[in-house]
Amino acid sequence: MKVLVLNTGSSSVKYRVYDCKGGQARDLARGIVERIGSATAEIRCSCASSTDTPCAALAAINESESVISDHRAAINRICQILLCDACGILEDISEIRGIGHRVVHGGEQFSASTLIDRHVINAIEDCCRLAPLHNPPALQGIRACDEVFPGVPQVAVFDTAFHSTIPPEAYHYPLPMELYKEHGVRKYGFHGTSHLYVSRKAVDLLDMPEEDTRVITCHLGNGSSISAVKGGKCIDTSMGLTPMGGVMMGTRPGDLDPYLPLFMTKALGMSVDEVDKTLNKKSGLLGICGHNDMRDIEERADQGDAACQLALDMFANRVAHFIGSYAMAMNGCDAIVFTAGIGENDAAMRKRILENAGYLGCFVDDAKNDNKHVEISTQESTCRAFVIPTNEELVIATDTAKLVAQTTSLDKAAAVN
Amino acid sequence: MKVLVLNTGSSSVKYRVYDCKGGQARDLARGIVERIGSATAEIRCSCASSTDTPCAALAAINESESVISDHRAAINRICQILLCDACGILEDISEIRGIGHRVVHGGEQFSASTLIDRHVINAIEDCCRLAPLHNPPALQGIRACDEVFPGVPQVAVFDTAFHSTIPPEAYHYPLPMELYKEHGVRKYGFHGTSHLYVSRKAVDLLDMPEEDTRVITCHLGNGSSISAVKGGKCIDTSMGLTPMGGVMMGTRPGDLDPYLPLFMTKALGMSVDEVDKTLNKKSGLLGICGHNDMRDIEERADQGDAACQLALDMFANRVAHFIGSYAMAMNGCDAIVFTAGIGENDAAMRKRILENAGYLGCFVDDAKNDNKHVEISTQESTCRAFVIPTNEELVIATDTAKLVAQTTSLDKAAAVN
Repeated sequence: MKVLVLNTGSSSVKYRVYDCKGGQARDLARGIVERIGSATAEIRCSCASSTDTPCAALAAINESESVISDHRAAINRICQILLCDACGILEDISEIRGIGHRVVHGGEQFSASTLIDRHVINAIEDCCRLAPLHNPPALQGIRACDEVFPGVPQVAVFDTAFHSTIPPEAYHYPLPMELYKEHGVRKYGFHGTSHLYVSRKAVDLLDMPEEDTRVITCHLGNGSSISAVKGGKCIDTSMGLTPMGGVMMGTRPGDLDPYLPLFMTKALGMSVDEVDKTLNKKSGLLGICGHNDMRDIEERADQGDAACQLALDMFANRVAHFIGSYAMAMNGCDAIVFTAGIGENDAAMRKRILENAGYLGCFVDDAKNDNKHVEISTQESTCRAFVIPTNEELVIATDTAKLVAQTTSLDKAAAVN
Repeated sequence: MKVLVLNTGSSSVKYRVYDCKGGQARDLARGIVERIGSATAEIRCSCASSTDTPCAALAAINESESVISDHRAAINRICQILLCDACGILEDISEIRGIGHRVVHGGEQFSASTLIDRHVINAIEDCCRLAPLHNPPALQGIRACDEVFPGVPQVAVFDTAFHSTIPPEAYHYPLPMELYKEHGVRKYGFHGTSHLYVSRKAVDLLDMPEEDTRVITCHLGNGSSISAVKGGKCIDTSMGLTPMGGVMMGTRPGDLDPYLPLFMTKALGMSVDEVDKTLNKKSGLLGICGHNDMRDIEERADQGDAACQLALDMFANRVAHFIGSYAMAMNGCDAIVFTAGIGENDAAMRKRILENAGYLGCFVDDAKNDNKHVEISTQESTCRAFVIPTNEELVIATDTAKLVAQTTSLDKAAAVN
């Protein structure tokens, strides 16, 4: 079954096409449409049959130079590319049997991926107030697909779903309870699909019953979050109501003394919008050293830049802070997993983060760490450290295929009865 | 040497008098003047010679019914009480040879207690913007003593001083660096005198060289903070720029997703002052269950009150969060210390907090914990748990006596030369 996976941002659509069969998924094609709505929209694509020759369909689109006015137009372009004769991904658009969407915020209603119907769309709309930057474009993507692929089942895969097992003592904030009851103020967490994927992979690598496993997953990218996964279920995560909380990130600070935003307004005279912008765009690594790409920061620190070294030390300190507290939450830890851009590629940072993890039984094997082995801890380590590339799209594809197969068999059953 | 210790609040003065000798201090008298400036000011006192008979000097003050108009008047009343013939604490006010003041915020300038001169007063004034509720009354107390005890040396003991050894990667916030450089925005920490006192006691109890010790101190009262003390030096603490950060408290939330205060203004329409009041006065335990006295909450939870049980579970979760992260910061932990109101008196909470600390080698001995032993961990525990009553006034008294003795001997040396 061919499945289209979409990750729709405010001015971009990322896509992937998989051929799914029995829980497995083969990657057929991927690409991105960027700067939708502007005169400088851009499309990139690659596919299993990619050679040095650029995609003929893409070349034709670029030749026509038409502006890509909205998400629907973007998805139409993606269809054109997928139908490219030379690439041969699809012969007919009807081969797409299911569409999976990444949806950032599912609120408290969704603990798993779900087929999209009117009720689900209302619920996603309802969560727009909690994720005003992320949920509206996902809805645009869903509506556009409804027009471009009429009748094809769509599935929503929520970034928050994996965190739905977090217990109340961890998801409630020590704030007036009305804020929760009336406005849904609680910890939701994000990157759930990534934490789910890499924690499952880690459980597979651990030679022990799943119910006994205690795994800490570190999704470290420009946005970062850490989760505690006990017996395969998430029991805590670092991001909160919004993706501003938790660990230090590229441009966001993570959790803070909550007086700080007030201090910025009351003592420094900043407007609430300025504070918001400062916390979202000017903090984190960028605030400390003027850079937010970890590769640049590592390089400059190597050359003796003190601010970059401070940024690295702070980042490692904050990630270690959460690893330590999640080890306590699970009474120990069997595996620490690194994933996403920084987690997968920055060996020096992994080493820095685990510098003091000996008390957990976790020791880094420098050679394995530097050479990007899956297991980077020494043989003697009782708490193992893994580097596991994340693959959220694969989860979205397999969840979509599974739910579509279930509905199809239900439809067949209904037709027989 | 007799020393007066003062803890001056906006409308109260707490005092204690000690007789200090060779690093030891004998407690002679204590008391409090409350509701200074109102028509219902109240004084309470007790002293080493207390019998069932109330203090004659206090009775005389109460009879005269004069309003206590300001801190100077309050300190004059305290002098009258100390001079009470029947109590016999002082025969003459000149017996007070040094006055120690608790000062909440010393900023970055003070890493130890210090004799007060013009420069120190300026520095404390300078920190008023960081502690607008706490530093101004301390200054009022210092100025009042200058008039009531002319020429008597005064010492400032800072709540922040013990935290001055925290390294930059822990004290910097992931915010634009200008906020630190221009406005002093960083983690300062509080309750330092308490963390210092109980961590030293714990080091004494540990049978190992001080430089190897790794101690986590939990000061849990209506305000709470946790510190990591390595080799006798503080390397991290939970409170931040202000006492609103860190762990959940009686009415304050501790660290949060920093978007929350913005959410309250932007999405819920609250003013910045309303948010401030909500975070300072209506959050923490009170926000969750409507109570902020832990004894009431424990009692109600025992009777089946679900909100109170949630508040207890959240509090334990947040304290354990910091214990776990500080264990990671020190690559393990030799002792966990509980102090202050909740830490010293709430055995059930200590047990809850340490429920998952077995991986650190820390196991609670229920009988010892329930019977308020100093050591509440089992004999087998490699990480020991202690209950150590805090005594900030004692530290203030001995620091004051030491600094006064040093000046006096310097003066004598100067007179001889």
